[in-house]
Amino acid sequence: MGVVVQSIPRAAPEVIARLEQAGVATVHEAQGRSGCMAAQMRPIWRGARLAGTAVTISAPPGDNWMLHVAIEQVQQGDLLVLAPTSSCDMGYFGDLLATSAMARGCKGLVIDAGVRDIADLKAMGFPVWSTAISAQGTMKETLGSVNVPIVCAGQQVNAGDVIVADDDGVVVVPHARAEEVADKAEARLASEDARRSRLASGELGLDIYNMRSRLAEKGLKYV
Amino acid sequence: MGVVVQSIPRAAPEVIARLEQAGVATVHEAQGRSGCMAAQMRPIWRGARLAGTAVTISAPPGDNWMLHVAIEQVQQGDLLVLAPTSSCDMGYFGDLLATSAMARGCKGLVIDAGVRDIADLKAMGFPVWSTAISAQGTMKETLGSVNVPIVCAGQQVNAGDVIVADDDGVVVVPHARAEEVADKAEARLASEDARRSRLASGELGLDIYNMRSRLAEKGLKYV
Amino acid sequence: MGVVVQSIPRAAPEVIARLEQAGVATVHEAQGRSGCMAAQMRPIWRGARLAGTAVTISAPPGDNWMLHVAIEQVQQGDLLVLAPTSSCDMGYFGDLLATSAMARGCKGLVIDAGVRDIADLKAMGFPVWSTAISAQGTMKETLGSVNVPIVCAGQQVNAGDVIVADDDGVVVVPHARAEEVADKAEARLASEDARRSRLASGELGLDIYNMRSRLAEKGLKYV
Amino acid sequence: MGVVVQSIPRAAPEVIARLEQAGVATVHEAQGRSGCMAAQMRPIWRGARLAGTAVTISAPPGDNWMLHVAIEQVQQGDLLVLAPTSSCDMGYFGDLLATSAMARGCKGLVIDAGVRDIADLKAMGFPVWSTAISAQGTMKETLGSVNVPIVCAGQQVNAGDVIVADDDGVVVVPHARAEEVADKAEARLASEDARRSRLASGELGLDIYNMRSRLAEKGLKYV
Amino acid sequence: MGVVVQSIPRAAPEVIARLEQAGVATVHEAQGRSGCMAAQMRPIWRGARLAGTAVTISAPPGDNWMLHVAIEQVQQGDLLVLAPTSSCDMGYFGDLLATSAMARGCKGLVIDAGVRDIADLKAMGFPVWSTAISAQGTMKETLGSVNVPIVCAGQQVNAGDVIVADDDGVVVVPHARAEEVADKAEARLASEDARRSRLASGELGLDIYNMRSRLAEKGLKYV
Amino acid sequence: MGVVVQSIPRAAPEVIARLEQAGVATVHEAQGRSGCMAAQMRPIWRGARLAGTAVTISAPPGDNWMLHVAIEQVQQGDLLVLAPTSSCDMGYFGDLLATSAMARGCKGLVIDAGVRDIADLKAMGFPVWSTAISAQGTMKETLGSVNVPIVCAGQQVNAGDVIVADDDGVVVVPHARAEEVADKAEARLASEDARRSRLASGELGLDIYNMRSRLAEKGLKYV
Repeated sequence: MGVVVQSIPRAAPEVIARLEQAGVATVHEAQGRSGCMAAQMRPIWRGARLAGTAVTISAPPGDNWMLHVAIEQVQQGDLLVLAPTSSCDMGYFGDLLATSAMARGCKGLVIDAGVRDIADLKAMGFPVWSTAISAQGTMKETLGSVNVPIVCAGQQVNAGDVIVADDDGVVVVPHARAEEVADKAEARLASEDARRSRLASGELGLDIYNMRSRLAEKGLKYV
Repeated sequence: MGVVVQSIPRAAPEVIARLEQAGVATVHEAQGRSGCMAAQMRPIWRGARLAGTAVTISAPPGDNWMLHVAIEQVQQGDLLVLAPTSSCDMGYFGDLLATSAMARGCKGLVIDAGVRDIADLKAMGFPVWSTAISAQGTMKETLGSVNVPIVCAGQQVNAGDVIVADDDGVVVVPHARAEEVADKAEARLASEDARRSRLASGELGLDIYNMRSRLAEKGLKYV
Repeated sequence: MGVVVQSIPRAAPEVIARLEQAGVATVHEAQGRSGCMAAQMRPIWRGARLAGTAVTISAPPGDNWMLHVAIEQVQQGDLLVLAPTSSCDMGYFGDLLATSAMARGCKGLVIDAGVRDIADLKAMGFPVWSTAISAQGTMKETLGSVNVPIVCAGQQVNAGDVIVADDDGVVVVPHARAEEVADKAEARLASEDARRSRLASGELGLDIYNMRSRLAEKGLKYV
Repeated sequence: MGVVVQSIPRAAPEVIARLEQAGVATVHEAQGRSGCMAAQMRPIWRGARLAGTAVTISAPPGDNWMLHVAIEQVQQGDLLVLAPTSSCDMGYFGDLLATSAMARGCKGLVIDAGVRDIADLKAMGFPVWSTAISAQGTMKETLGSVNVPIVCAGQQVNAGDVIVADDDGVVVVPHARAEEVADKAEARLASEDARRSRLASGELGLDIYNMRSRLAEKGLKYV
Repeated sequence: MGVVVQSIPRAAPEVIARLEQAGVATVHEAQGRSGCMAAQMRPIWRGARLAGTAVTISAPPGDNWMLHVAIEQVQQGDLLVLAPTSSCDMGYFGDLLATSAMARGCKGLVIDAGVRDIADLKAMGFPVWSTAISAQGTMKETLGSVNVPIVCAGQQVNAGDVIVADDDGVVVVPHARAEEVADKAEARLASEDARRSRLASGELGLDIYNMRSRLAEKGLKYV
Repeated sequence: MGVVVQSIPRAAPEVIARLEQAGVATVHEAQGRSGCMAAQMRPIWRGARLAGTAVTISAPPGDNWMLHVAIEQVQQGDLLVLAPTSSCDMGYFGDLLATSAMARGCKGLVIDAGVRDIADLKAMGFPVWSTAISAQGTMKETLGSVNVPIVCAGQQVNAGDVIVADDDGVVVVPHARAEEVADKAEARLASEDARRSRLASGELGLDIYNMRSRLAEKGLKYV
């Protein structure tokens, strides 16, 4: 505890843009069905979709001091990702911190805890994914760390990983795989487009994906 | 496991339309305060209200193969109702399956598990009630069954039952009772309208329902 | 059980208006970080902000009879606050009760249980904070009490306390402290405005709040 | 609501005894991996294992009146199975009801709600599986039904079904399948015994079950 | 925050002994079915039953400093009752604090949070009721208060209230009502003894409590 | 998915024995209050304490095939640590797998999912920490991986880390820190012994730890 790592890797902005374009569900599939945070991680308002580099924060329960420290480390296009060291639903973050974060180029927040000033955050257009909403404020008494590895909503996050978030939730793309996953996600989108038009015309997935013989082989019986 | 029942009963479209008109809370009262799914079953977007015939799906945890099988069984005006054989919040259903289901006349989905592509489903106007939202995708490895009896969010559902769903949640009307419940629901709506105007004028429920003497008898004391 | 207290204290309307203006998060801070209900207490629709005097209801699980009794006790500007004597997520309150409550001047409902007719309540503009949404109706068989002390979502509420509620949740201000808290909340808002503009210009909280020396003293290390 | 079915089917005592001998996990496998109640259903004390015929109870939340009605319907070797019509963790059952139930030959209780007098129930040797423990007592104001179909901890239970319960939880065997399942369970136990000794000698499941080729075929890589 | 009230009322030891003798379920009934903490409050080991005077602690999440302060306030026969100001399951209390508390005459702990050193606490015979077990330790950075009113597991507790705890959970008896409740609890125990022998002989509750006519009047039908 | 890493680091048996001796709470403190799994991770029976090297398993929900693969990788003194790729409470592990694991020298299992055959596992003396108990069996259809990094009950676990588990829960010691943490844990135990005897004699923590001046400085008031 009490460490701030000042230098972190960042994926190329163009790669991050492509991951943002693909969205959470597609990116999750593209990297082999891994990296999804738990379903309790939800957007505080609907309609945002974004990707950015993770600046990670490990914070004590009920103490948001490290958010101030982390904001100094943010560069244009980064996201803040906070995990408390023990389960906590207090409101770590509100409109003042969002004002400060936005002024530094921060694109959003992913937090395995609570936030507040929800109406203001929406009005400001600052996107947040959290596991709770609570007006209950926190203290500034105890150190945590910035840009150390954390576990957030069941997923390991390292500083520099790419975070993709939308109405479906949040997925973590390890820094080293960002470009590869962007490529695979785009390939996947293209193939989905082709299938979508066939499905829209009433053709069945059973036929498009040749499932009938495999289902019969497994023993499916029609009665 | 591994059975698809191809023939199910369906209530008359006119009866289904009357149940849709009445809404979940009224239908629940009309059938004797029974049939409500648990409160965890929530719409993924607000404002839809619909009723339809249940095509049921029993699926293994984390496996959505049977959704493809079930869509072939859907007729105009049906709803899909899926229960996993063990608690699971993975995203079984997204925009491709919704495209396919809509092309076959499916009116919506009720699922005791997770869904994804939320923003797309809303844009398509495809209504879903689920117990989770999750981008995490599923597999197609293991058989389940279609149109067998299931327990979904605490309620028994048989294929052919009428499902009514709106912002309040989901209620199950047994096939054999659909017409009777529609009649009772309409009677109830009429009587509610009468009471609503009296209440709006400031008259008290205590007086409209003659509660004062029964409260006194039970021992209520004003101090 | 079975008591209705008919006379309760009420804060001055002007004080209540000032607390409403300040909002939940600020009021919570202004009274020393206390009084917030648990994070499970959420608005059934977004965008309402209000304050009012608590008319409290202690009700049996699954029985909403006392709501009718309580509505008679409501005066212009009051809120209803209901806690069941045991955890319950059934729908205690719907559009008919809301019609009656509004006709008596009731500003809203805070309930540690479920409500229904959500779409109607939103259309009527009647604000509700609840811990559940459920179409499942309740009975009228058993007495509870009105205007006795209750515990609602983890907070003690006495009849006459001021309740402030918005998208962040609900906070309880003890009647005796209402004016003092309103003063402190306004002072806090003023100081927040000053800081907001400095933060918006890119100045860091680390500098505005002089945190750097205290962080160093606690042992924070930059690497 | 308000119905008591007085005549229910019962499996042969010898079949019930064989299912009791097999235990929950084996019976669950023997009937095709179905019928397990949710994991929240737990014994209030460890070490009991039993099977019996279900006398079902549908009860309102917080009201245990129907337990008295049901006890009159119990025959030697039956179990009581209670589900509230809405989620409730109050203590429906304690030492007095257990005294009465034991006097009528009741073997135990399975309840999707709370119980109390835990220490006494253990001292009496009366086995209970419940989803909560709570000293909070219930009322006797509202009717429910006895021997109607219920959903208990996620499983449909019909009066006359065989319930098997032990430290692993509770499984429901439909009345019509009791003998067939008992046969399959015994066959399964025999085959498990054979495998157990091979595994105890250090032989691997990979070899006993011939898994290596199927794993390789699916693409498992050793690195 | 930051207040220690040094003088609290205490019920007579003889009254406390009678409440301890009656146990939680009986005391709860005797005071009109009120005062039970939520079902999540469970003993860390089975078999303890005790009553004592509440020394209350309001503590920040993840900070157990006030336990040291409170132990100085304990007198022979007191219990410690701790509620965090926000939900927290960290381990606030272990064998060292128990050693200190026992040395001061403390009879046990009731805590709406976590404890640790479970095996040691059991070996020492120190009884604890908690809502979590966790090895994760806390800090000593932030003030709380001692002997102020708190809400613990859904119940208001004032310093000086009598706490009764056993395997069924925990009930709070307000200081002013302790003697009255002890009297009623004993009367209840006597009447229960009479009924127990009748029930044990096979007589039905339906007859002992004259329920048959009231059930018929409510409309119960035997089919 | 589908990878088995066959070579993992292991701490010296003597270091592991020292960590086992220290226990979970002490080891957690000794490594700077980190590494504790979430409080939902509980022993299926009380009284075991052990430490061992983690053989990790990443498994699909409802599929325990990889347990067979992992058992082949176990060496004397290892523990199995399993995390499903999505939340699942099915019973992955029972007495047959335990028989096999014990035959290979496995000391126990830590699993963020369910287990079954609880009574048998206790009788065999095979210790398990799990987040659920369920008789519901799993399949063998889909690959997972062995000895890859996993997140288990909120903690990152790498193959070769030392796992310490007892009645308080489970803590993860990174392989590289095992010896250092063992040293610190022993130092901590020694200092705790000294303090325990002072506390047992009635001396207060307030005095032993010199807390009084720091409390006064923070503003604690005695009234």
